[in-house]
Amino acid sequence: MHPQAPRQLVILTEGQFGPHSGKTAFGVIRYGRDEVVAVLDSTLAGRNVAEWIPGRDIPIVGTLGEALAVPGRPRPDTLLVGIAPTGGRLPDAWRPILHGALDAGLELHSGLHTLLEDDPELSAAAAIDGTRIVDYRRPPERFETAVGRRHGAGKRVILTVGTDCAIGKMSVALELRNAGRAAGDSVAFVPTGQTGMMIDGWGVAVDRVVSDFLNGTVEWLVEEGERLGDWVIVEGQGSLDHPAYSAVTLGLIHGATPHAMILVHRAGLAAHDFDHLPDRSFPIAPLGPFIDLHEQVAGLVAPSRVVGVAVNTSRCRDDTEARRAVAAIAAETGLPAADPVRFGAAAFWEQVKAGVEALPWVGGGR
Amino acid sequence: MHPQAPRQLVILTEGQFGPHSGKTAFGVIRYGRDEVVAVLDSTLAGRNVAEWIPGRDIPIVGTLGEALAVPGRPRPDTLLVGIAPTGGRLPDAWRPILHGALDAGLELHSGLHTLLEDDPELSAAAAIDGTRIVDYRRPPERFETAVGRRHGAGKRVILTVGTDCAIGKMSVALELRNAGRAAGDSVAFVPTGQTGMMIDGWGVAVDRVVSDFLNGTVEWLVEEGERLGDWVIVEGQGSLDHPAYSAVTLGLIHGATPHAMILVHRAGLAAHDFDHLPDRSFPIAPLGPFIDLHEQVAGLVAPSRVVGVAVNTSRCRDDTEARRAVAAIAAETGLPAADPVRFGAAAFWEQVKAGVEALPWVGGGR
Repeated sequence: MHPQAPRQLVILTEGQFGPHSGKTAFGVIRYGRDEVVAVLDSTLAGRNVAEWIPGRDIPIVGTLGEALAVPGRPRPDTLLVGIAPTGGRLPDAWRPILHGALDAGLELHSGLHTLLEDDPELSAAAAIDGTRIVDYRRPPERFETAVGRRHGAGKRVILTVGTDCAIGKMSVALELRNAGRAAGDSVAFVPTGQTGMMIDGWGVAVDRVVSDFLNGTVEWLVEEGERLGDWVIVEGQGSLDHPAYSAVTLGLIHGATPHAMILVHRAGLAAHDFDHLPDRSFPIAPLGPFIDLHEQVAGLVAPSRVVGVAVNTSRCRDDTEARRAVAAIAAETGLPAADPVRFGAAAFWEQVKAGVEALPWVGGGR
Repeated sequence: MHPQAPRQLVILTEGQFGPHSGKTAFGVIRYGRDEVVAVLDSTLAGRNVAEWIPGRDIPIVGTLGEALAVPGRPRPDTLLVGIAPTGGRLPDAWRPILHGALDAGLELHSGLHTLLEDDPELSAAAAIDGTRIVDYRRPPERFETAVGRRHGAGKRVILTVGTDCAIGKMSVALELRNAGRAAGDSVAFVPTGQTGMMIDGWGVAVDRVVSDFLNGTVEWLVEEGERLGDWVIVEGQGSLDHPAYSAVTLGLIHGATPHAMILVHRAGLAAHDFDHLPDRSFPIAPLGPFIDLHEQVAGLVAPSRVVGVAVNTSRCRDDTEARRAVAAIAAETGLPAADPVRFGAAAFWEQVKAGVEALPWVGGGR
């Protein structure tokens, strides 16, 4: 998917606004290039995104009509579906809202597994209304297995991995990209999920790719990323120990063959956010052995090292507790640690860079 | 895909008959329930499959017309595409043969990634000819992530894993299934690739499944397998260290959560059969550490142990050399080892069973 011009968005979250099931909305609001005119969520009508994300003055409205006429804001040109539910299906209750948006001439942007453009009713409505549907999760028409490509000379590839899904692998990659650019480095972000694509305007939702071509698609995406910068930060997905998503994670590790990895961890999280079976739980892995295992598994194809731990401290009550949590993880792992979302990524970026440059396999193509 | 009645096959391999790129043909001939009337391969016309697979008297013919009228054999009712090329695309040169088969009223069975039923010309021809196309690689209309299901009480699940792709993970699973049944045990085989499906008449080609649903599809397939037997032997795919296919392998490990694994290894193989880039090679992993790593990686979701090594001795000159290779691997790994394809699987099955029953996590559902 190729870059596109910034848009004016209304983000639909209907009953699911929040950092977890609404993580697409949060990501686009925090990091996107598009202007967010309003959030559409009748369960929170009258409130403001700033209550959740300080500094983001975006009204939450209860109807599409209100979203189309927010005082002092432009009329939106796009309705973006702002949830990422497990399995990625379209809730039936949202259909009337989507039809209303199309009838108002808005584009419909979605990252659901349910490809809205393939829905006969919605695509017919888009045609009649003279607008279009953009499915970020539509896989590329490219069916190639990995070939074992070497990285370009002088390129450094970093992949974010994690101890769970939905804990900030994309946010950490974006914070590092931003910090690197602020420091004058040539840094590219490689989006591998629908939210990252909505934010950066290109990429592939790799979890939608046919399994046989997963490693190969990631390999190709990284090649594209190398055209965009010398430091290539690849958005990770899932976790190597996740019962449902581990295959996607390994496809990223072996497809990207990163020189280095950054482990993203949520302080205080004891078990995977995976609640399908009430009588089961899957604990979060202990950091030290889990880091070793990532390096061993990555090393089956190309050597790689975890050079830092990005700590999600959103469960900490305040900055003091957050700093304590970060320090504890630095001590536990012997690695640079930081919460780049809460405290900024400038210093962490310098640590990561130094860690990567010190690796014996960095320098010269491999 | 549900079981179907045995058929009379002509297997198309056109220039690719052989144990590697024709592994689908070899698998169906060796293990299938269908009668193979002829192999269609103009580059080997006049020869006989028995030259490659002793005891299988199947003529190799040069034209479809000959295949339709082999003296002393029934007229085939199905043309089966018998190759599994990297990427799984249909060679253009085969189109006239496929049209000829449809025009002769044969069904077309294929395991290619290119779904033949979705090809407008071929599907139109099938409709006109009153026959049908069966694409084994068509993924099920099922889009569910894994839920962390426990195995049924009393069920034992075994997955074949390997040090490379295309070295016999399916054959070992089938030999063990056959040996188990011969010993009076209740054993099911779970096909996870197109050849296994053609042989056993059900299953899913999991490499065709959308990555997000890979672990979940395998989990569900194993549940189906548990309905068919107490011992459930799951066909593995790829290898954990394969640059192109490792994601599929991990989806099988974490989706199947096998109580035990059997490592399949090809004696004498130094590097992966992966020749995309002439200046690169990917060595076969040393067995001991690779076995440990499989157990660690599987254990991220559920405990598992490698309880035996199945050795592919097809590179050994004779039985003596093969026995020596098997003994060396048993000594190296400290595990039961055997070549179940060359020497039969009866004794190995008993060793595997004993190894599984001794595992602390076997017995009672988990």
